[in-house]
Amino acid sequence: MKNKTIALIGAGNVATHLARQLTNVGYTIVQVYSRSVASASELANRLKVNYTTNLEEITDKANFYIFSIKDSALEEVISNMPHSNGIWIHTSGSMPMNIFKGKVQNYGVLYPLQTFSKTRVIEWKNIPIFIEASDDATYQSINQLAGNISSRVSLLSSEDRKQVHLSAVFACNFVNHMYNIANTIVGKANLSFDILLPLIKETCEKVYTLSPHNAQTGPAVRYDENVISKHIDLLDTPELKKIYQLLSESIHKNHQ
Amino acid sequence: MKNKTIALIGAGNVATHLARQLTNVGYTIVQVYSRSVASASELANRLKVNYTTNLEEITDKANFYIFSIKDSALEEVISNMPHSNGIWIHTSGSMPMNIFKGKVQNYGVLYPLQTFSKTRVIEWKNIPIFIEASDDATYQSINQLAGNISSRVSLLSSEDRKQVHLSAVFACNFVNHMYNIANTIVGKANLSFDILLPLIKETCEKVYTLSPHNAQTGPAVRYDENVISKHIDLLDTPELKKIYQLLSESIHKNHQ
Repeated sequence: MKNKTIALIGAGNVATHLARQLTNVGYTIVQVYSRSVASASELANRLKVNYTTNLEEITDKANFYIFSIKDSALEEVISNMPHSNGIWIHTSGSMPMNIFKGKVQNYGVLYPLQTFSKTRVIEWKNIPIFIEASDDATYQSINQLAGNISSRVSLLSSEDRKQVHLSAVFACNFVNHMYNIANTIVGKANLSFDILLPLIKETCEKVYTLSPHNAQTGPAVRYDENVISKHIDLLDTPELKKIYQLLSESIHKNHQ
Repeated sequence: MKNKTIALIGAGNVATHLARQLTNVGYTIVQVYSRSVASASELANRLKVNYTTNLEEITDKANFYIFSIKDSALEEVISNMPHSNGIWIHTSGSMPMNIFKGKVQNYGVLYPLQTFSKTRVIEWKNIPIFIEASDDATYQSINQLAGNISSRVSLLSSEDRKQVHLSAVFACNFVNHMYNIANTIVGKANLSFDILLPLIKETCEKVYTLSPHNAQTGPAVRYDENVISKHIDLLDTPELKKIYQLLSESIHKNHQ
């Protein structure tokens, strides 16, 4: 298949989901690299391809090299990659495209704005994918690759991508942590997390039709001192008390 | 209609949604009270019933008196209510049932665990409703009323209800505030909040099948210093930097 072979550098959540979907739409993963044998072999076995834990053994024949590894390892892995003529792409929200500069001719970024857990099935079609490329021809190639897995592909600079990644930490990671704290609290009343699901669902669905500002409810909007101080008393740890206080003040400031 | 008349004390979001649904299932709202003429008349006109802004004018003939007003006003409103023989019920998460004690014979609590905005249509059937009552007969009446609007009614003590309400502040109000902050951040990259919706939806749907602890992703899990310090630098205000830091530390502690 022409221009459709991919070497996958990384075997974590993003790499796994990308590999599945790229395979679904006709790309061929030819090799998987991971520092960890367990991760590399797990993904490679699923894809029925070779894997390596040695960067020197990475093929020089792939059309694309997709780097889905943690930010802190990216620079070192890139600098130890053998030479090749394919397009090098990373999937990181916060790393600049130019991390590839001087190391390879054609490169870019493909950042899917989604949270990936291995056990989940992901509907790729609606995931916003932000791309960037070293030059026009490379842009066309990355745009085509991304366009095969999502209908929401757009060009975004490294600077703006950083903001998107930062926003995702709030909209996803911090939101999930709020769920986690809520789970701990209902546990104290011997209730299951399930009782919170209709509330969680409605909170999410509201912002499809209302701005988050207009969707806000609860004691912090008008800073209902009475409820707020009782809630802070109920919380077990100084850390949770501080989180409650800080977020309540922040909501209130937003609604004055 | 026997045992099916309700006087509604309050005309805010909860009162409005309750009134709609109770009417749908065959109860009759006979009167609406609110301190504010605008709120009282708006809801009363929609229900085609009388309203009053004067507590002394509240009917003594209703079967139920449902108090959906803010916690800080509840005690005073109750103490100024005229005598009646109906069942008095409040809908607050944090106020004890005994706030009615000595004022009326039969009383209780009906706390729907949901976020209510006037413009939203709510699917009541799945909303957990936590009830409590002064005595068995009253419990039967409140249980029947609640059971007509939801299939998830359960008895819960005032103490445990406080915990549920507290958990809801995290699972809803604080979650929505995270959406709000994310909205501000994507705005800086001239992007619309819409790009975050698939991420927000998946974050919510994940916790239907994974515990929030197992669903957690992002730089805070392993405390990726590199990403975290860049993100804190990107944030505009000391307040947002502090929120980011505190929540990241809290996530990390949870995953050690």
